[in-house]
Amino acid sequence: MTERTPIRGLLAPVVTPFRRDLTVDPVRYLGHCRWLLSQGSGLAVFGTNSEANSLTVEERMELLEGLVAAGLDPQRMMPGTGCCALFDSIRLTAHATKLGVAGVLMLPPFYYKGVSDEGLFRSYAEVIERVGDARLRIYLYHIPPVAQVPLGLKLIQRLLQRYPDTIVGIKDSSGDWSNTKAMLDAFPGFEVFAGSEEFLLANMRAGGVGCISATANINPAAIHRLYEGWRSTYADAAQAALSETRRTVQKYPMIPALKAVIAHHAGDPDWSVVRPPLVALPQEQQAALNAALKTIGFAMPGLEPAMA
Amino acid sequence: MTERTPIRGLLAPVVTPFRRDLTVDPVRYLGHCRWLLSQGSGLAVFGTNSEANSLTVEERMELLEGLVAAGLDPQRMMPGTGCCALFDSIRLTAHATKLGVAGVLMLPPFYYKGVSDEGLFRSYAEVIERVGDARLRIYLYHIPPVAQVPLGLKLIQRLLQRYPDTIVGIKDSSGDWSNTKAMLDAFPGFEVFAGSEEFLLANMRAGGVGCISATANINPAAIHRLYEGWRSTYADAAQAALSETRRTVQKYPMIPALKAVIAHHAGDPDWSVVRPPLVALPQEQQAALNAALKTIGFAMPGLEPAMA
Repeated sequence: MTERTPIRGLLAPVVTPFRRDLTVDPVRYLGHCRWLLSQGSGLAVFGTNSEANSLTVEERMELLEGLVAAGLDPQRMMPGTGCCALFDSIRLTAHATKLGVAGVLMLPPFYYKGVSDEGLFRSYAEVIERVGDARLRIYLYHIPPVAQVPLGLKLIQRLLQRYPDTIVGIKDSSGDWSNTKAMLDAFPGFEVFAGSEEFLLANMRAGGVGCISATANINPAAIHRLYEGWRSTYADAAQAALSETRRTVQKYPMIPALKAVIAHHAGDPDWSVVRPPLVALPQEQQAALNAALKTIGFAMPGLEPAMA
Repeated sequence: MTERTPIRGLLAPVVTPFRRDLTVDPVRYLGHCRWLLSQGSGLAVFGTNSEANSLTVEERMELLEGLVAAGLDPQRMMPGTGCCALFDSIRLTAHATKLGVAGVLMLPPFYYKGVSDEGLFRSYAEVIERVGDARLRIYLYHIPPVAQVPLGLKLIQRLLQRYPDTIVGIKDSSGDWSNTKAMLDAFPGFEVFAGSEEFLLANMRAGGVGCISATANINPAAIHRLYEGWRSTYADAAQAALSETRRTVQKYPMIPALKAVIAHHAGDPDWSVVRPPLVALPQEQQAALNAALKTIGFAMPGLEPAMA
């Protein structure tokens, strides 16, 4: 086993900027990643909120290479590498691991539904065996509302028993705290990230290691502060404030909403572009969302300079 | 509009053979495609039952090029080209269209759930506009039990109005005859394929054009005979016999079951290999399935010579 410093705390599933012609914009991408790092957030690039499955394998590889080439620390990165096709997952996972990332966040193959634990075990096992790199660290990605392919406790236990140095943690985006708690109780030392900052304080109190949350794209400093200060007296009040911000955003479809907020605060309307099948928020909804955030004192400090 | 002979009748979502190391085997693939054509079936390569979403974009392109290079008629082909990532769908669709296929069978992007008709419309529209080839014919692929992203009547109507020469039909794998019937009633001239031969006779009687069915991989001649003779006096009896065969197979997970039947009749155990997250049927289930088929007189005439 290669010893590495685990990645902890807050990570953002980094939203991916597109030009109006729907091509990826690596310049705004790098700017957003730099800003996130400056605010205390790690980079869970290529997550659900990154529209990662709307990117080609090549687009993901180029974006990741660009971040590393620009000098961003790969040990602050946890790219998503789980695809429907086994050999795509292998390729992305090997590529990211060679670049020195802290770990990868791996969806199960998500086209077929109702697949067996045996089939899911083999999916992860084939990636691990074929990547064959002792540096590989996998965080499982449990997001049944979207992938519709859940990762249950028995499967996790089997993976942990077979690959104890490689399977190191999970992001639980079930939205079901009892599931997060069950994993924390069942697997001591397993690094459990909540899938939303709404569960950050509860997760830390129960032995979790942080959260990987959509709204980290817009509210990273405040979430990071709660992570750092979760034992403090102000923790419950901070959690309540974070949750209020989140609930304001998630009255709208999450990815278009995040991009609308960034577009507004960066003064760059093109940030609102999403790839189909997603649709940008209509202008009036963008305005209403940003106005609602303003009334609760929301800001994105330091955003514009970092973007320039 | 470029006039082309529409593809009709029976098509098989061609199962994809893998070697034991999980790589694609183009030789057995070509043999199986030739056998299907010899039995009256067209080639809906890269469907759900082809494990298409377990293949990389490059694997699909190489397999299709191989079939055309071997002299198989692309006008008997309807490859699946719908991916999660827009630019993958565009690449595969442009490639297949240039090779002269009869049409493509296109899944909607299937990672995000609960997406809007507007987003799905744009997904198809971007492919059509960017492929920009008058030869393109799209068959929509409605398979909510697997993709979990349904294509409703309003969306179909909008696509037909905007792209009347390109959007030519649909495969309805909802398993819900009332949905198939609703499409036939709503859109005269729209080429509706049932997603299973269990609905073949009903579909033909209601104005449909055929079926694209998993079990066409093993039972093509009998299904093709019913397609040809659906107006005959033996049609109901033939439908009952087809349905009995299908029900025997679908007591097991469909894709592993199809491969187990081919493995048995081709005398080639490696045909049973599937890619994760699927799992091959255990030997005893393979034996039980093939024994059950034998008792109902099932055979795969001409299979072995065509495979050689």
